[in-house]
Amino acid sequence: MSDKRTIDVAATPMLDRAKEIGFLTTFDRAKAQEPRCTFGNTGICCRICLQGPCRILPKKPGGNKGICGAMDYTIVARNIVRYIAGGSAAHSDHGRHIAETVLHVAEGKLKDYQITDAVKLIAVAKKIGVETEGRDVLAVAKDVATAALDEFGRVNEDEITWLTANSNESTLDVLRKTNIMPSGINLSLAQLLHQTHAGNDADPVNIIFGGLKAALCDYDGMALATDLSDILFGTGVPVVTEANLGAIKADKVNIALHGHNPLLSQMVVKAAKEMQGEAKTAGAAGINLVGICCTGNEVLTREGVAIATNFATQELAILTGAMDAMVVDVQCIMPSLRSLAECYHTKIITTMPIMKIPGSYHLAFDEHRALDSAKEIIRLAIDAYKVRDTEKVCIPDVRNTVVAGFTLESLLNIFKKINADAPIRVLTDAIEAGEIKGVALFAGCNNLKGTHDENHFTIATELAKNDVFIVATGCAAQAFGKEGLLNGDGVQKYAGEGLKKFIARLNAAAGLTAELPLIFHMGSCVDNSRAQDLANMMAKEMGLDNRDVPYVASAPEAMSEKAVAIGSWNVALGNPVHVGVVAPTVGSTLVNDVVTKVAEDVFGGFFFWETDPVKAATRLVDILEERNWKNAMRKKANQAREEAN
Amino acid sequence: MSDKRTIDVAATPMLDRAKEIGFLTTFDRAKAQEPRCTFGNTGICCRICLQGPCRILPKKPGGNKGICGAMDYTIVARNIVRYIAGGSAAHSDHGRHIAETVLHVAEGKLKDYQITDAVKLIAVAKKIGVETEGRDVLAVAKDVATAALDEFGRVNEDEITWLTANSNESTLDVLRKTNIMPSGINLSLAQLLHQTHAGNDADPVNIIFGGLKAALCDYDGMALATDLSDILFGTGVPVVTEANLGAIKADKVNIALHGHNPLLSQMVVKAAKEMQGEAKTAGAAGINLVGICCTGNEVLTREGVAIATNFATQELAILTGAMDAMVVDVQCIMPSLRSLAECYHTKIITTMPIMKIPGSYHLAFDEHRALDSAKEIIRLAIDAYKVRDTEKVCIPDVRNTVVAGFTLESLLNIFKKINADAPIRVLTDAIEAGEIKGVALFAGCNNLKGTHDENHFTIATELAKNDVFIVATGCAAQAFGKEGLLNGDGVQKYAGEGLKKFIARLNAAAGLTAELPLIFHMGSCVDNSRAQDLANMMAKEMGLDNRDVPYVASAPEAMSEKAVAIGSWNVALGNPVHVGVVAPTVGSTLVNDVVTKVAEDVFGGFFFWETDPVKAATRLVDILEERNWKNAMRKKANQAREEAN
Repeated sequence: MSDKRTIDVAATPMLDRAKEIGFLTTFDRAKAQEPRCTFGNTGICCRICLQGPCRILPKKPGGNKGICGAMDYTIVARNIVRYIAGGSAAHSDHGRHIAETVLHVAEGKLKDYQITDAVKLIAVAKKIGVETEGRDVLAVAKDVATAALDEFGRVNEDEITWLTANSNESTLDVLRKTNIMPSGINLSLAQLLHQTHAGNDADPVNIIFGGLKAALCDYDGMALATDLSDILFGTGVPVVTEANLGAIKADKVNIALHGHNPLLSQMVVKAAKEMQGEAKTAGAAGINLVGICCTGNEVLTREGVAIATNFATQELAILTGAMDAMVVDVQCIMPSLRSLAECYHTKIITTMPIMKIPGSYHLAFDEHRALDSAKEIIRLAIDAYKVRDTEKVCIPDVRNTVVAGFTLESLLNIFKKINADAPIRVLTDAIEAGEIKGVALFAGCNNLKGTHDENHFTIATELAKNDVFIVATGCAAQAFGKEGLLNGDGVQKYAGEGLKKFIARLNAAAGLTAELPLIFHMGSCVDNSRAQDLANMMAKEMGLDNRDVPYVASAPEAMSEKAVAIGSWNVALGNPVHVGVVAPTVGSTLVNDVVTKVAEDVFGGFFFWETDPVKAATRLVDILEERNWKNAMRKKANQAREEAN
Repeated sequence: MSDKRTIDVAATPMLDRAKEIGFLTTFDRAKAQEPRCTFGNTGICCRICLQGPCRILPKKPGGNKGICGAMDYTIVARNIVRYIAGGSAAHSDHGRHIAETVLHVAEGKLKDYQITDAVKLIAVAKKIGVETEGRDVLAVAKDVATAALDEFGRVNEDEITWLTANSNESTLDVLRKTNIMPSGINLSLAQLLHQTHAGNDADPVNIIFGGLKAALCDYDGMALATDLSDILFGTGVPVVTEANLGAIKADKVNIALHGHNPLLSQMVVKAAKEMQGEAKTAGAAGINLVGICCTGNEVLTREGVAIATNFATQELAILTGAMDAMVVDVQCIMPSLRSLAECYHTKIITTMPIMKIPGSYHLAFDEHRALDSAKEIIRLAIDAYKVRDTEKVCIPDVRNTVVAGFTLESLLNIFKKINADAPIRVLTDAIEAGEIKGVALFAGCNNLKGTHDENHFTIATELAKNDVFIVATGCAAQAFGKEGLLNGDGVQKYAGEGLKKFIARLNAAAGLTAELPLIFHMGSCVDNSRAQDLANMMAKEMGLDNRDVPYVASAPEAMSEKAVAIGSWNVALGNPVHVGVVAPTVGSTLVNDVVTKVAEDVFGGFFFWETDPVKAATRLVDILEERNWKNAMRKKANQAREEAN
């Protein structure tokens, strides 16, 4: 790790502040873990049974295998696919929760939620084969929600629905031929755990294929989560707001919405609108909501809520001394928030049954009284505001304008103004004309094995210079927001000539009050399915298999198991995937070669690990240039010509 | 680890043999892993995200927590419940496979399987509320199989069926009050993975409760696996056979049935009966089947197949040079078998889609042609026999008589001959009279952190001396078989006076040709549900809550994730559980105290770790003596008297 801890200019003074008060942040804790244990870090430590831990110790007689005889490749493969299982479980369980809520709305059981986007509901229903003609919205919603819940409950061999409905036929062929097409989500996860139990599968390729099946469940769970969240809360349209710690306001009651699931945070947004008066009575100028991690991205996309910060710097929001409450739901919430909050007046409010922090305030979320829960949370924040120590307030004056809300629908709406018949042609024409080189998705987390946000910023700006059209989700998107890449200035500063021209054309057509950004924020990490829909559309429009499309994905600072799952389904669906940390596959040359080389032959997608951001960007551009779309299109055109003769 | 590697007298010469041929066995590999990594061994190494591995390093500033801020208790709790998830997935997926087969039988899709035990089918149907009156057997079977599959597919909040049907009401009350009653099996596993994702639950007690919920799914999955296996293949009755490597026959075609799932091995047994002639044509005296691990226990219980050996010594069966084929299904199969088999003529035949070993022969099991598959396997073995190198044959002349097949039904059948109206009274009367002190279940694996089979043998014989009635499953039961505790001689050698008298009374009533054993072999590790049924019956008969019943469980050499799951549901259901290895909970005093102390207050059950077998036995006897049954019975009697007045 370099001595430079972050490139986020709001973070640096906050880290100094932490030092002053003697609080050791995640940056200090990351330093304490250096150097990482080589065995764990490279994947060759097995803790799948109680005989171990077994480590691959080639110099000791008998030490080149685990006690059971598992080779390095078996151990590495088992470990990596269990990451996928964890990630896929997290994403899809979030999706299941949303589906359950939609079902309860359809059954008339919930007063605080409704079907907000009936147009999307009908589109989704048609996509998955639910009858819509002449039917009541709630009846359709019930069938769609039931179909979603069936994804989790299925125990027969029927193919999974959302993945099948969303993917191109040639992709599905590959998944079927390689026998990785899932049926039930939860079934696939349970089977993967079984497959990797001690004394079970020892074949690394078979294990990895089991992992890919679980990764496709991750895709499915997030695709339905996105669809149903849009149906429930609306499909985002372009919004203008701001990002970084400067979005926290000294004169207001500040509430951070942190986690991943929009079910409660959407209610907090609603309640906050009604309760500005209560905050004013308490002496504040109003209520100010800010987002952290993907709950933040959800309410940014749909409600224009500002971004406070991303994963690695979540503690720093408390260090501003002006954070009155941080309400958290699930995933990526540092347990350290609570002990830090003790140095301040901040209330940490956990809300979900499977996410508690000892000592924090737990308000059990109940969808039947969701808005009331949201109001209670706001009152807790107002109470905290009243005892805020103004002497401790220190908010860095750092914020950047953010233009976000680019759900695939809202992006296509802009394209439509240029080409109403085939909106996606706007993008593919620009590629075919050589104006832009292709599309890159930036996704994923922060990982303090490197300098915070540096990989995100450097790789993205390098790609922009090279005329790559960029979409982003999750903490990557938040990094871009903080660094000023989600606005029109970003285009002027970093875009290459081709990309500049392309975005200028979009700007002219879009007719928005704000300039379009360098990078198009597509939403939270479950919204990576939106980006895959874009890739699928490109393939279809260009008449290509997904493997030939000039589309790449990068997780410059992958951290969570979810990131492993996302990267893995990207590979299975044909996308090259850069990861900016070295994956724990390198302990086995065989496994590492399978996921970085062999995978390309089988799926078209593959992984590569590159920690140097400039090298990573160069490689990503090279890959886009080398993608086979030109040859493939020429070949198809020739075939068509021959058939016509 | 002591220098003594095993107490199994058949194993010692085989280990010498391994040395001669230069093969490093699991015993050598276990030595190579000494000393174990303290972080992993005590549970304080976290690999749940890609920022780590994080280890608790209290001496480094910031090192007392993980990078995310997770405390030792969070890390330890997450790690241990993920063991439960793995174990529960393995057991229950095995159950799901059986349920699927029963469904297909009921639908008339399979020619090689049928409903063998219709009496049990009706009993199970009644237990779970399936209508039986005047219905066709296959119609009932279909409903029972569907109910079983529903356990895996359920995504609503309905309670799980088998657990609810089998447990006593006061136990269910505790599970409901502590909010650990599961609904769907696969759902609970996926949720537990989600709960333990990075940045999710940090509360160790909440995490452990999530783990217990998954453990109860392990119980449920194994209970239905046992019921449906009995329905499909018959409920075992007492059988006489033999155990240890001497069961391998130099003059026969030897086939080892290894793994856990009886679906294929039962067919091999059937095929072997038909194909003795083919073996004779090849010059052998016939076909000799032997069992290893729990597939072995399944075919022992139902078919009287001899035990070759248990988990840690599975390689040694090949070292006899007379093993022609080893057919394996799922779980606990050492990947090293294949490289060892290369030194011999032995064919390692994998059969299941989620269990392959690179380089071994894979015969994809297809239930539609199960008997044909079994015949192919036998032909492969016969072919191998033809090229067996007789010079390499070296079978230790060690075997002990085994009297097994004590499914709960067959045990109760013996009790019935003494007390036809209330068979279980035979056992509880003996306890109330002080003739025996209670019941102990021995379960679980081998773990080479200690001397192979020593804990099993020493603890069991100590308990027998102390007049404890012993039942056993899994590799523990196989250890007892090899050491001569599963026959009448065992009683004479090791039973205390009370136990001797009790077994003599059973012998007199049973009217079997063989003497009853010291320890009653209840089946495979999924058959631990049979032992729990026994505990439940005792509680009911004695008018007690499970927590007061003089019943204990011991896993003297726990190894697999399944063992962690089994132990955990035993605790949740009210049973004290000894584990003969130190669990990876000791890295957090809090978590360790929760599972070894606090658990008793909540559930009545608790864990204790004791590696010294004599100390463990003493403690188990003390616990039986201290169980509250006498007071509880007295209290209930007083209450009844008061109510009568």
